[in-house]
Amino acid sequence: MSQLDDSVRRIRKGAAVLSASSDDVRKRALLLMADAIDAERAAIKEENAADVSAAEKEGISDALLHRLVFTDSKIDSAVLGLRELAGLPDPIGRVREKRELDPGFILEKRTFPIGVIAMIFEARPDALVQIAGLAVRSGNAAVLKGGREAGRTNRILVSIIRKATEKIINGEWILGIESHEDVNAVLGMEGLIDLIIPRGSNSFVRYVMDHTRIPVIGHSDGICSVYADASADIDMAVRIFIDSKTQYPAACNAAETFLVHKDIAPSLLPKIGEAFRSLGVVIHGDEETRHFIPWAVPASEEDYHTEYLTLECAVKVVNSIDEAIEHIASHSSHHTDAIVTSDEDAKRRFFQEVDSADVFANCSTRFADGFRFGLGAEVGISTSKIHARGPVGLDGLMTTKWLLSGHGETVAEYSGPDGKPFHHKELM
Amino acid sequence: MSQLDDSVRRIRKGAAVLSASSDDVRKRALLLMADAIDAERAAIKEENAADVSAAEKEGISDALLHRLVFTDSKIDSAVLGLRELAGLPDPIGRVREKRELDPGFILEKRTFPIGVIAMIFEARPDALVQIAGLAVRSGNAAVLKGGREAGRTNRILVSIIRKATEKIINGEWILGIESHEDVNAVLGMEGLIDLIIPRGSNSFVRYVMDHTRIPVIGHSDGICSVYADASADIDMAVRIFIDSKTQYPAACNAAETFLVHKDIAPSLLPKIGEAFRSLGVVIHGDEETRHFIPWAVPASEEDYHTEYLTLECAVKVVNSIDEAIEHIASHSSHHTDAIVTSDEDAKRRFFQEVDSADVFANCSTRFADGFRFGLGAEVGISTSKIHARGPVGLDGLMTTKWLLSGHGETVAEYSGPDGKPFHHKELM
Repeated sequence: MSQLDDSVRRIRKGAAVLSASSDDVRKRALLLMADAIDAERAAIKEENAADVSAAEKEGISDALLHRLVFTDSKIDSAVLGLRELAGLPDPIGRVREKRELDPGFILEKRTFPIGVIAMIFEARPDALVQIAGLAVRSGNAAVLKGGREAGRTNRILVSIIRKATEKIINGEWILGIESHEDVNAVLGMEGLIDLIIPRGSNSFVRYVMDHTRIPVIGHSDGICSVYADASADIDMAVRIFIDSKTQYPAACNAAETFLVHKDIAPSLLPKIGEAFRSLGVVIHGDEETRHFIPWAVPASEEDYHTEYLTLECAVKVVNSIDEAIEHIASHSSHHTDAIVTSDEDAKRRFFQEVDSADVFANCSTRFADGFRFGLGAEVGISTSKIHARGPVGLDGLMTTKWLLSGHGETVAEYSGPDGKPFHHKELM
Repeated sequence: MSQLDDSVRRIRKGAAVLSASSDDVRKRALLLMADAIDAERAAIKEENAADVSAAEKEGISDALLHRLVFTDSKIDSAVLGLRELAGLPDPIGRVREKRELDPGFILEKRTFPIGVIAMIFEARPDALVQIAGLAVRSGNAAVLKGGREAGRTNRILVSIIRKATEKIINGEWILGIESHEDVNAVLGMEGLIDLIIPRGSNSFVRYVMDHTRIPVIGHSDGICSVYADASADIDMAVRIFIDSKTQYPAACNAAETFLVHKDIAPSLLPKIGEAFRSLGVVIHGDEETRHFIPWAVPASEEDYHTEYLTLECAVKVVNSIDEAIEHIASHSSHHTDAIVTSDEDAKRRFFQEVDSADVFANCSTRFADGFRFGLGAEVGISTSKIHARGPVGLDGLMTTKWLLSGHGETVAEYSGPDGKPFHHKELM
């Protein structure tokens, strides 16, 4: 048995302890984690500075560097985030269904932690703190693999978190892993690890999905679109197009494709062209779009399947809401799609027929986020239709058990022509 | 593109139609299905008789033959089942969460059908009717593969169901497939099929899980156990042991292992020995068990990992509830495990610490069933911790969408030091 295997087995025991721990213990653990990170910030920043200088020597991009640096204000937010998680209602033991099968014979469906969750994420130290906090709040043990560039920062954070909680959680519940070999070993640990949540590049998430039989929650692509309906308010559409594309273009919930109803193309597209040109957004447009935005690059079919993640987008004029919905069905990655409209029927159809995790009307696609949704925090965004869809907070980290309490009931009594009937009385 | 591929693409279009159809349309479709099966019962029975006589020539087992025969009373139950499904509340569009992010900026999480579900099941014609009914009620299109022996019966049932609903559902939503090649092709249809629910032998379910990247809900093993605690009522324990083992030994929710606390072994085990001997149940017992039931076969470690599915079981004496819980953790398939106890603390610990889909107190494991649970019907029982766990009814066939309705909100307004705060007011 490898050392890693041994560690994960210990974590699995710790998961049982955490799962059986009271709400109060998990709350106090979160507050102890917050206090410890706050108290040890000098040491954390020292390790982080070493990570940053090594990354700079390797010529890391500015965007990645920005994510890697653990500033005082980011540490403040991380500490505050843990304290806020402590204030959220306990997700364990919630009654989802309650039914009397026969007088005094009570069935309940209650929430319980999933067990051991492996989370693989990018080089953001604040992500590690948030994910560890979600694990404690939800009663799940966590195997964490952060970005390589944040290695020293992650190591000290895991060590501080472990030490802070070991007095009140009688078991190991957090394990940091670092190498690609360890990640590959984890992918093979069916039966020891219950769920994998990968974040990162499309190709990495796809790699994880292809190399494990453990359930995976995540998304590989984020091809989000905004459709401006015939009835759209022009100024609102301009505002939403700009925010969806440019507020943070590298995010998975940034829009890549804009669809414009032909009736408002003459009034909307010139304004979009002007706004996007001044913001430096490259437009790939179809012929109709280029009629109104002559400087747009001709779009190929490929452009409508592209997740640019930069100041670049594809624009297409459509003849109807049907064509917009059809385009989304065949091109979107079913992450987040929005309509701008003042027609309630159009909104209703879009909400009904667009089959994506997040379907929005009259607001930016960038709202697709666990914090903005009020979930407390998120471990990621799921484009799977199974288990959890969209931003995944505490809820997505829970499973359920059916608990049935009787007084000696047998199925034989309820079987055959003379068997007792069930009365199935809903108790909630 | 193969013919099957083409058919599944048509079904996928039908899924969108079914998903957008009203509650009333889906209810009427179920009643039309019920009427048509009722009206065509002579033709159905003729096809079934042909299946039965072919199966008899092939020397099918009595148990399988019993499942295959579609008697008038089974047809009556199937028809009644469809009418009952029509009476269940609409599972589509239920609001699971509702929150105001800021005044007038409303987020809802609502249920929607998953899409196209492939279900592979045994040679029971009533299963086909029930599964087709669950698909219509939940708004999902269905690809159905029944047992080979029921081929003619399944073909006429699919044809009757399709014809009965085509007047009110404007699209193809049900597809019967028959060959192993078609099943293998379906396993590769990622993106066209959203979920696979296999039922059947352990090795078959495992084969499906190993050969597809489409999510699978199901269970491979059903090693269920009953633990008689020190405080158990002896007569109740005997009754529950007998029902759990013998009421229908071939079912996945029948018990395979019995654990007995050492303090009640002297009073319980002789009675169990007597009862099981008279019912023809073979006992594999540990040394302590054989002290009280001398005719028991010595148990090997392997016996505690065996799903007998016949009148055979493993019995073990344990020193404590801890040992019982530990045994279940390392041997159970986490399907259904029960405790017999009169001690509330023991029950609470068992409910908390046993990590199985169904955890019961003072009743038979055989209650683990969608109909008995009051779910209306079930497509199967899941031992996965993800998405659906235990008996899977309409709820397990739904996914959710996050619907966000605004008035032009951008993330930029809510960002940075001067950004507006979210007020995240719960509306339910």
